[in-house]
Amino acid sequence: MGSIQNQESHHGSSAGTIRPLDPEEFRRQGHLVIDFLADYYNNVEKYPVRSQVEPGYLKKRMPESAPYDPEPIEEILRDVQKDIVPGITHWQSPSYFAYFPASGSIAGFLGEILGIGFNIVGFNWMSSPAATELESIVMDWLGKMLKLPAKFLFSGGGGGVLQGTTCEAILCTVVAARDQMLKKIGRENINKLVVYGSDQTHSALQKAAQIAGINPNNFRAIATTKDNAFGLTAEAFRAAVESDIESGLVPLFLCATIGTTSSTAVDPLAPLCEVAQEYGIWVHVDAAYAGSVCICPEYRHYLDGIENANSFSLNAHKWFLTTLDCCCLWVKDPSALVKTLSTYPEYLRNKASETKQVVDYKDWQITLSRRFRSLKLWLVLRSYGIANLRKFLRSHVKMAQDFEGLIEMDKRFQVVVPRKFATVCFRMSPSEIGGNHESVTREEAANNFNAKLLESINESGKIYMTHAVIGGVYVMRFAVGASLTENWHVILAWKVVQEHANALLTTP
Amino acid sequence: MGSIQNQESHHGSSAGTIRPLDPEEFRRQGHLVIDFLADYYNNVEKYPVRSQVEPGYLKKRMPESAPYDPEPIEEILRDVQKDIVPGITHWQSPSYFAYFPASGSIAGFLGEILGIGFNIVGFNWMSSPAATELESIVMDWLGKMLKLPAKFLFSGGGGGVLQGTTCEAILCTVVAARDQMLKKIGRENINKLVVYGSDQTHSALQKAAQIAGINPNNFRAIATTKDNAFGLTAEAFRAAVESDIESGLVPLFLCATIGTTSSTAVDPLAPLCEVAQEYGIWVHVDAAYAGSVCICPEYRHYLDGIENANSFSLNAHKWFLTTLDCCCLWVKDPSALVKTLSTYPEYLRNKASETKQVVDYKDWQITLSRRFRSLKLWLVLRSYGIANLRKFLRSHVKMAQDFEGLIEMDKRFQVVVPRKFATVCFRMSPSEIGGNHESVTREEAANNFNAKLLESINESGKIYMTHAVIGGVYVMRFAVGASLTENWHVILAWKVVQEHANALLTTP
Repeated sequence: MGSIQNQESHHGSSAGTIRPLDPEEFRRQGHLVIDFLADYYNNVEKYPVRSQVEPGYLKKRMPESAPYDPEPIEEILRDVQKDIVPGITHWQSPSYFAYFPASGSIAGFLGEILGIGFNIVGFNWMSSPAATELESIVMDWLGKMLKLPAKFLFSGGGGGVLQGTTCEAILCTVVAARDQMLKKIGRENINKLVVYGSDQTHSALQKAAQIAGINPNNFRAIATTKDNAFGLTAEAFRAAVESDIESGLVPLFLCATIGTTSSTAVDPLAPLCEVAQEYGIWVHVDAAYAGSVCICPEYRHYLDGIENANSFSLNAHKWFLTTLDCCCLWVKDPSALVKTLSTYPEYLRNKASETKQVVDYKDWQITLSRRFRSLKLWLVLRSYGIANLRKFLRSHVKMAQDFEGLIEMDKRFQVVVPRKFATVCFRMSPSEIGGNHESVTREEAANNFNAKLLESINESGKIYMTHAVIGGVYVMRFAVGASLTENWHVILAWKVVQEHANALLTTP
Repeated sequence: MGSIQNQESHHGSSAGTIRPLDPEEFRRQGHLVIDFLADYYNNVEKYPVRSQVEPGYLKKRMPESAPYDPEPIEEILRDVQKDIVPGITHWQSPSYFAYFPASGSIAGFLGEILGIGFNIVGFNWMSSPAATELESIVMDWLGKMLKLPAKFLFSGGGGGVLQGTTCEAILCTVVAARDQMLKKIGRENINKLVVYGSDQTHSALQKAAQIAGINPNNFRAIATTKDNAFGLTAEAFRAAVESDIESGLVPLFLCATIGTTSSTAVDPLAPLCEVAQEYGIWVHVDAAYAGSVCICPEYRHYLDGIENANSFSLNAHKWFLTTLDCCCLWVKDPSALVKTLSTYPEYLRNKASETKQVVDYKDWQITLSRRFRSLKLWLVLRSYGIANLRKFLRSHVKMAQDFEGLIEMDKRFQVVVPRKFATVCFRMSPSEIGGNHESVTREEAANNFNAKLLESINESGKIYMTHAVIGGVYVMRFAVGASLTENWHVILAWKVVQEHANALLTTP
């Protein structure tokens, strides 16, 4: 049972005492759970990667209401194994290649549990100085690893903050940009503000714009093409901006992406920022996925031009060994965030904030309360060090290259867009697929076939990939980055793809 | 060192191998960290409750950049003890009585680390069915414990979702209400929308309104008075609404509070909802602090009238043994959230979502990605059970009552507003304090004295309280709720208050 004892309980000691944080009971149960998770990692390959349960499976196994009396941790852990694990899609499986990775690590995990253990609510400096100060320090560390311009670092007048996810980072910056602009043009013009991305930009931008009250008619998803590798060209951006200005609208915000979700395309920062500067548009750079690998010198060039952007973010919880959630956001002008996100009610007033010598991160984000997120990033940086972090990221790129090599040896398949990082977009070629029905074009038939192929692969539970549609083409996305993935998992994954393709090609 | 081995490292095995999630190394290091935290809880009373470091303390102790080579966990933990712990304000200390509690527990902690261990990204059902389904189940469980009207539960057509904090819950509901209204009156009227709270409402409302693009001129913090125990009266609310309508504005949203931050005041739901219904205003009920105790039948009456509200939230991370962050939000009409917060890009399309048999919680919140938060709430409910949870909450109320009793025995002090829950607002009476300078009124002198008294108490590090200003009166807030607090800590705390008061009264 838990360490709270029920008076009527037969479980023993100190009837009537409520000790939910008894240190020795914490120690005992904590060790149980660590062992549970270590065993889970040992066994994770045995589970189907994508959960195979049906909607509503858990309701059938659970009581209608919470128990009146306490239940022991041992029983709860048995239920986790029996009822929860089958409903988990195993993002930590070495055969997980879906979406983008959620690359966990021992250091990220331990940093998170230290933070949870302290369980502080770090809204301002005073509420736990270590939380604020460590965050500022590690954000400067990581900024230096990325060779961000000094203006993005605290040491250069800017600064970094740990948000939960990119959605929050974009929302904060959209709102900061919005209020800056409305101050100039008057709040009555809010419906004239325009937000720009490409048709490859993550849906986080659209959602942030919606929440910030941007007129949905003024959301531009500018078309990209295969000719430009699905990057947003400065010409297309300029054309959209000028057309909006002609219509009497006010260009506000551009989200440029380094490593789009569908195909890891890269928007060219330098020319885009040039256009943006000309028109006074805030540029946010979303490098949620690919930002991490820019700590390797050979990838840093993707960030060239960032000196003229306003803000930059990457998700350390994607491909940087840090558990969810950990979005790193840097801004050149923190006061833009603070002006729009600050509240300072009496009950939060304190000497340290009054002196203005400290950062109060509550004014850099949507929420007041915040977890001690910096510990996990600090542990990742220290436990692995720059050298090994680079090595780790490169090992995933190498595995993706190997996968690409395997695809190329099987002429039935094709890589649809050039691979830039550790994600491969591929499909069975239309030439291999019938599609002779008159109502179905060859491309439509290929799309249907690849969708069916992917579903058959995922249903097997052996590996898990997801899809995208890029320029009308349905592709399977093979994203390497799960922390347990080794070379042989990639080779095995390719065999699984081939087997399912063979089976599907021979079914009438 | 970490489990990633540096090639040049002398630390041993498998040079060049990168294994950041090696199960046995995870086990070894995990046990170390559990022991570290158990020792922390054992020793937490020895630390000054409010951190005593100076701004910038950590920068002096940290290197300028991240290490190139890995460092061992043992060394990192030594640094946590040496450099981080002194900068922590110990929210888990039994002598922590500041703000509102962050009541940690073994069950909440273990549930969180299980979720982190699985490290899934639960944006939709498919991405880990167990995460979504367990969340819906525990939200119905907790809703039943609170005797929420069936319309707020999944079983009654509504539903609950776990957000991070109340700020997010309010933002989501403001945005849902905003878009519902704009659909009726046209987006060109966005600057006419008005949001209401009282002058006691949490700053989260103002921040949410700012982010949602509500005209700052249309944010109403309606005055409360001591006569109404700082609750928002229906009369005052109606007057504000009618005046706005007369001015051509459009009343949109009311945030009513059960247990305000300053004084735990309660807004009367039934009459407020009646006015709101009359004018088609969305009512959100913020019970961040006091909602938890409404699982005790003797407190449930504070929620009477909630059947006519639109949404309701409480923070399980405040006073419900669940680690930060865990805000429980219930809505009567989930489609209002989904309509405004939903995005459905191609790369997230999946069979389960298409069938509409499942909940995709990404459409109930600001962010796409989301942690597996339901595990910790499930573990709290099961590990302690309803009976002990009630007992635990009542034990805090009892301790606050005892503290109040101690105050009342010392005639120099006064309780400023009637205590409703486990938070006591008190001060040294003006009659005890000089204030004879002509420029200072007696009340001003009392405010200054109590501010000085509080700072002297907090500087001692023996206990930590925070303050509020209620109706112009500076009060010390004594909020019981830290999980390790026992009766004798409260008695000791009172002695600390008396000692510091004595010292201050006798200083010239």
